[in-house]
Amino acid sequence: MTQLLRIQNFNVSSDGIAAGEDQSLERPFGLDGPERLFSWAGATASWPMRTDPGGSRGLDDYLTRDYARNIGAEIMGRNKFGPQRGPWQDHEWQGWWGERPPFRTPVFVLTHHERPSITLSDTTFHFVDADPATALRLAREAAQGQDVRLGGGVTTIREFLDADLVDTMHVAVSPVKLGSGLKLWESPDELRDRFHLDVVPSASGVTHHLFWRK
Amino acid sequence: MTQLLRIQNFNVSSDGIAAGEDQSLERPFGLDGPERLFSWAGATASWPMRTDPGGSRGLDDYLTRDYARNIGAEIMGRNKFGPQRGPWQDHEWQGWWGERPPFRTPVFVLTHHERPSITLSDTTFHFVDADPATALRLAREAAQGQDVRLGGGVTTIREFLDADLVDTMHVAVSPVKLGSGLKLWESPDELRDRFHLDVVPSASGVTHHLFWRK
Repeated sequence: MTQLLRIQNFNVSSDGIAAGEDQSLERPFGLDGPERLFSWAGATASWPMRTDPGGSRGLDDYLTRDYARNIGAEIMGRNKFGPQRGPWQDHEWQGWWGERPPFRTPVFVLTHHERPSITLSDTTFHFVDADPATALRLAREAAQGQDVRLGGGVTTIREFLDADLVDTMHVAVSPVKLGSGLKLWESPDELRDRFHLDVVPSASGVTHHLFWRK
Repeated sequence: MTQLLRIQNFNVSSDGIAAGEDQSLERPFGLDGPERLFSWAGATASWPMRTDPGGSRGLDDYLTRDYARNIGAEIMGRNKFGPQRGPWQDHEWQGWWGERPPFRTPVFVLTHHERPSITLSDTTFHFVDADPATALRLAREAAQGQDVRLGGGVTTIREFLDADLVDTMHVAVSPVKLGSGLKLWESPDELRDRFHLDVVPSASGVTHHLFWRK
């Protein structure tokens, strides 16, 4: 079985922006009202952070329910893990997700500044100073035959796209224009030379973009 | 966790027809060219009967890959299991699917004519003379906490819809008109009083209809 590298439920604005320039503790995405980008996902029955029953089970739910299917490891950039930059001042920060992170697999956090691994419930964060191909090799080994999810943020996704390591990608484009910030793309058409693309409008207002390698 | 009763990848024509009146060994669906209804599924990477690598990984694949997710049992009508009618003449017929049926769970075949269970690879067929609610109770128990798939055919699905036992339903409507046969519906709008409905056109030509209970 092929071990795919998959991007799942990544959210951008209609002008391709996934995050602001100024990330902080109070603004994990560096954006005003980031829920404008991802509220479609929270409305579904399968949203990984959902704590109450209920939620929709239509098209959007097919996307969120695929988040964990056959995933054995995640790779994320340091800026997804936290707002700190440079050497770690201490090891108190353990991510945004509290004591039960939604990943539930090994997670490889890309950083030039190493620190000891952390285990929180069934998620273990490893901190690695590695290029995309090396990080993917580590994650594949940890995934034990299952697929690897590339969790973002946007800079990390662009690096892996540039290295041509991504097999499938789901991006939800929201009908909101942000103007400035970190862009995934000018247009999804940029990727059509290497990927097939299904563009699927949802009743929730987002348009799902489903890419798979040619 | 709720144990859902789910219909997955059920195929009908644009005029709502899922099967012909005259099923036979040579014509399992009683239709000329039944692949006109389901070829979209065979083109996907996750089609359960796929034996070679490859296949698409876009919208249609999200539907086929959900076929087995969290399914612990199937219920099917006798006419899905085979073309025989009335008392079983012998027990030689073991279904259409050869020695490795794609179900891989207990399967409850609804029939007024009982016969011993059959195990083929990781699928076991049980033959039960039961009304829909009783069959669902048996299947839920066998599914050990997982969901139950209602596999068809069309008559069985209509019985379970009439008994209001279906939680979610995915129907792929193909752009072909058949004129006569067994109908699932005159129009999908008939179900809107009890179900939410997402109507999702696919580049393959089919239109996915995703229902979930209100």
